[in-house]
Amino acid sequence: MSPPPPKPPRDSEVVMTQMILPSDANPLNAAFGGRVMEWIDICGAVSAQRHCRHAVVTASMDDLHFHASIRVGWIVTLRARVLAAFRSSMEVGVTVTGENPLTGEKHLTTSALLTFVALGQDGGKVEVPPLQVETEDERIAQAEAHARREERLARRGMGTHWQKALGG
Amino acid sequence: MSPPPPKPPRDSEVVMTQMILPSDANPLNAAFGGRVMEWIDICGAVSAQRHCRHAVVTASMDDLHFHASIRVGWIVTLRARVLAAFRSSMEVGVTVTGENPLTGEKHLTTSALLTFVALGQDGGKVEVPPLQVETEDERIAQAEAHARREERLARRGMGTHWQKALGG
Amino acid sequence: MSPPPPKPPRDSEVVMTQMILPSDANPLNAAFGGRVMEWIDICGAVSAQRHCRHAVVTASMDDLHFHASIRVGWIVTLRARVLAAFRSSMEVGVTVTGENPLTGEKHLTTSALLTFVALGQDGGKVEVPPLQVETEDERIAQAEAHARREERLARRGMGTHWQKALGG
Amino acid sequence: MSPPPPKPPRDSEVVMTQMILPSDANPLNAAFGGRVMEWIDICGAVSAQRHCRHAVVTASMDDLHFHASIRVGWIVTLRARVLAAFRSSMEVGVTVTGENPLTGEKHLTTSALLTFVALGQDGGKVEVPPLQVETEDERIAQAEAHARREERLARRGMGTHWQKALGG
Amino acid sequence: MSPPPPKPPRDSEVVMTQMILPSDANPLNAAFGGRVMEWIDICGAVSAQRHCRHAVVTASMDDLHFHASIRVGWIVTLRARVLAAFRSSMEVGVTVTGENPLTGEKHLTTSALLTFVALGQDGGKVEVPPLQVETEDERIAQAEAHARREERLARRGMGTHWQKALGG
Amino acid sequence: MSPPPPKPPRDSEVVMTQMILPSDANPLNAAFGGRVMEWIDICGAVSAQRHCRHAVVTASMDDLHFHASIRVGWIVTLRARVLAAFRSSMEVGVTVTGENPLTGEKHLTTSALLTFVALGQDGGKVEVPPLQVETEDERIAQAEAHARREERLARRGMGTHWQKALGG
Repeated sequence: MSPPPPKPPRDSEVVMTQMILPSDANPLNAAFGGRVMEWIDICGAVSAQRHCRHAVVTASMDDLHFHASIRVGWIVTLRARVLAAFRSSMEVGVTVTGENPLTGEKHLTTSALLTFVALGQDGGKVEVPPLQVETEDERIAQAEAHARREERLARRGMGTHWQKALGG
Repeated sequence: MSPPPPKPPRDSEVVMTQMILPSDANPLNAAFGGRVMEWIDICGAVSAQRHCRHAVVTASMDDLHFHASIRVGWIVTLRARVLAAFRSSMEVGVTVTGENPLTGEKHLTTSALLTFVALGQDGGKVEVPPLQVETEDERIAQAEAHARREERLARRGMGTHWQKALGG
Repeated sequence: MSPPPPKPPRDSEVVMTQMILPSDANPLNAAFGGRVMEWIDICGAVSAQRHCRHAVVTASMDDLHFHASIRVGWIVTLRARVLAAFRSSMEVGVTVTGENPLTGEKHLTTSALLTFVALGQDGGKVEVPPLQVETEDERIAQAEAHARREERLARRGMGTHWQKALGG
Repeated sequence: MSPPPPKPPRDSEVVMTQMILPSDANPLNAAFGGRVMEWIDICGAVSAQRHCRHAVVTASMDDLHFHASIRVGWIVTLRARVLAAFRSSMEVGVTVTGENPLTGEKHLTTSALLTFVALGQDGGKVEVPPLQVETEDERIAQAEAHARREERLARRGMGTHWQKALGG
Repeated sequence: MSPPPPKPPRDSEVVMTQMILPSDANPLNAAFGGRVMEWIDICGAVSAQRHCRHAVVTASMDDLHFHASIRVGWIVTLRARVLAAFRSSMEVGVTVTGENPLTGEKHLTTSALLTFVALGQDGGKVEVPPLQVETEDERIAQAEAHARREERLARRGMGTHWQKALGG
Repeated sequence: MSPPPPKPPRDSEVVMTQMILPSDANPLNAAFGGRVMEWIDICGAVSAQRHCRHAVVTASMDDLHFHASIRVGWIVTLRARVLAAFRSSMEVGVTVTGENPLTGEKHLTTSALLTFVALGQDGGKVEVPPLQVETEDERIAQAEAHARREERLARRGMGTHWQKALGG
C-alpha cells in the first residue's frame, strides 16, 4: 500500500476558545492546571486527527510550561498544529494564550508538545501522511521535533530510578 | 530567616485511587488522556504541598508517557513523591498503575515528572525544605532530577520556532 | 461621555473547537443538546465581550435549531460574531459545524441567535460600541437583527398564557 | 395504524429542583447561563417523553429569556409542560423560578420554548399523541404554539445572511 | 427570643427530576451510586432549607438503600420532606423513583434518611421551626424519626473499632 | 463449586487522596456533602472489588456522619476496607480525613458504612471470599458488622411510614 499523500501544517490547525469559569478554578481563583492540560490534550488530539484522519491516542507530553496564571473570568485561546509526522505518530505543538476580557490584552500563558499515535479500525498502528512544511519557521520546528524524537529514543530505558524510588 | 529543616521523600508520598467511569472515557472507551493528566496534576500538587506546606502552582510537566491504555471499569492508582527540592520549587514524580478489577493484575500505564513552585501568602515565591534522601534509589532519582533541571535551564530561549510556526 | 468608537464584526470573531466525549453524550450516543447549548452560550459570550470589553450576561436566545445530530467522537467547531449592536446589548450569531474526524466531511449541525447585555463594574448597563459593518452579508445580517429586535419588543407582554398554563 | 390516544398537558408535567452550587456559577457569582440552558433542555425533554413515550431529540429552542439572575446558594425550580403536539413533534414550555433560600421569596427568572421530535427504535420520526387541552389557558397556549409553528415554517430559507456573514 | 412558628411537612416538599445521561453512569451502564447520592444530598438540603430558611449542612445519612438499578436513559424523580424537627436539626426522608421513559412504568429504586443542621450567619447552630404533622402517616413517621435519633445518641462512642481497624 | 479462599482485610485496603477544588464546594465554600458521598461510594466500591474480584453495586449506606467540614484548598484522604463478608455481599468501612495543607494538621471529618453486592458476568449475585480477620480490632469490627446486618434484616418491612408520608 502506498503511503498517504503529504499534507501541510496548516491543514491541522485548531483554534479552541474557552472561558475560565469558577468550575475550572484552583483554590487560588486561577485556572486549575489540570483543566488546562485537559484542554491541551483535546486540542492536540483534534489537530493530530485533522492531519491523519484516524483515531488517535496520546502517547506523551513534554515541555508543558505554565508561564503565567489565568484568572477566573479570562478568555483562553488554544492553538495547535502538527510540527512533525513520523511513521505512525505525530508531534503536535499547543500554545495557550490568556486574554483579559476587559482590555483585550493577551499573553502566552502555557505551551506544550504532545505526541499522538494513529490507530486503525482494528486498534493497530497505521501510517500517517508525511508533513509538507512550507515556511522557514515550519522547517526549523520540524527539525527540532525530529531532534527531540532522537533524544527520546536515546533516553529509553533510563530514568527509571525515580519510579523505583516511588515504590508501590 | 534560616531555611526550613530537611524532609525525606516519604513525607511527600501520595496515593490516589480512582475508578474509570464512562464520564472519564474517550470515544474508544478507554480513559481519556486529559482526565488522567488532571489527576496527575492534583496528585503531584498534593505531594508538593506535603513537602513544603505552602500553596503551590504547576510550573511544568515533562516526560508524561502513556505506556498502555486503561479500560472503563478499571481501577487506577496514582503514586507521587518529591524527587528533588530546589530553592522554591520541587520536582515530583507520578506513576499511574492500571488494575484489572476482576483479576487484580496491575501494570504501569502512565508516568510523569512535574515541577511545582511554592507561593507564600502574598503570592510571591518562598523557600522550600531541602530533600533528605534516604535510599540509593532516592539518591539517584534526585541526581537525575538535578540533571534535568540543568538541561531545562540550558534549553531556555530555544525551541520557540514551533510557537512562531503556530502563528496566532 | 462620548460613545465608544465603532468596531467591525470581525473583531468579535470567536472559534471554539470541541470533541464529543462520552461525558457529552445523550442516551442515543450523540451530543446531548444541553451541552451544545452550554458551548453556544460561552462562545457567544466571548464574542460579545470581544466587541464591548465589558462583563456580559445572556439576555435571550432564539432560533436555536439542531439541523443534524453529532456522534460521539466527532469534532465540533463553533463560530460566533456580533451581528448587531444596540445601546447596551448585542445580538450574536453562533454556528456549530460537525466534522467527521475520519473523513474531514463537515456540515452545519446547529445555529442560534443570542442577545447579551453589557454590565459595568457596578453591575449596571453600559453603552457598547456601534457595529461598523463592512460587507453586504454583514449589512443584511445587521438589518435582520434590527428587525428581530423590533419584533421582540412588539411581542413583549404577549405569550404569557403558556406560563399561566404551567401553573406552579 | 391508528394514532395514539390524546393526552392532557398535565400528563407531561415535570418539576425539577436544583441548587446553584459554585460549579454552576459564572465569573459574576450567579448561575451560568449555559448551565441553566442545560437544565431547561433536560426538563423539556422529560416532559416531551412523558407525552409521547418515545426517545426524543431537541429540534429547536426559542424565546429563551433571562429575566433576572440567580445567585449561588439559591434554589431553582424548573417546570415544563407540552403546549402543543404536532404530527411527530411537540412544543414544550419551560419556566425557571429562583427562590431565596433564606426568605422563601420567589420570582420567575427564565422561560423558554422548545420543540422536540419523537424517534422510534429505528431512529425515524414517529407519530405522537394529540394534545387534549382542558383549560382556557391551555387552549390559548396551544393556539399560540400553532401560530409560532406557522411562523417558523414561513421563515424557513430566510435569515441565512448572518450565517454567511460568519464565514468559516 | 421566641421559637419560630411551627410548619407542616408539606411546606418542605421538594420534587427533583433528572435524566440518567452517560455521564451519570457506572461501568455497568446504570446510574452510578455516587451520583444518585449527590442528588439525594441536594434534594434533602433544599427540603431542610424550605423548612428552616437558614443555611444547612449535612450531618448524617442513614438507611440509604438501592432497591433496584436505573438504566441510562431512564427518568428519576426524587421526593423529599422533613420528617421531624429537633432543636437545630431536621431529619429529611428522600425517595428516588425510576421511570421507564418508553412505558411510564415506575418503581421505587432508592430511599434515604438524612439529618441536616441549620446554621446562622455567624456559622453557629440556630433553632428551627417545630414540625406540625397533619396526617397519621406523618405522625408515625415523626415518631420513628425521634426513635432513630434516640438510638443514634445511644450509639455514640460505640462502633469505633472498625475505624481503628482501618488504621491510617 | 467450592467457595473462594478467604482473604484478610488488608487485601481490600484503598487509599484515595483528593484536593477540594471550587468545583467541589457548597455555597459556604466548604466541601459539598454530595461530592464527598460520591468519593466514598467509589472508594468503597474499589475496596469491595479488591476483596471479591467481581463487578459490584452499592446496596446500602449507613452511619454516614460529617464530623467536621472541609475547606476549599484542603486535602482529603479516604481509606476503605472490607469489615465483613457475607454470602454475596460485603460491608465496607470508609473514613475521610481532612488535612490542612499549610500545617499538615489532620482530623477525621467523615465516616460511613456501605454494603456492596457482587455480580457475575450474567448480572446475578455471586459468592464472595470469606474474610479472614487477623487482629483484635478487625475481629470486633467484623462482629459489629454481623450485628448490624442482623438488625437490618430485622428492620425489613418497617419504617415505610415515612415513605407513605412523602406521597408521590
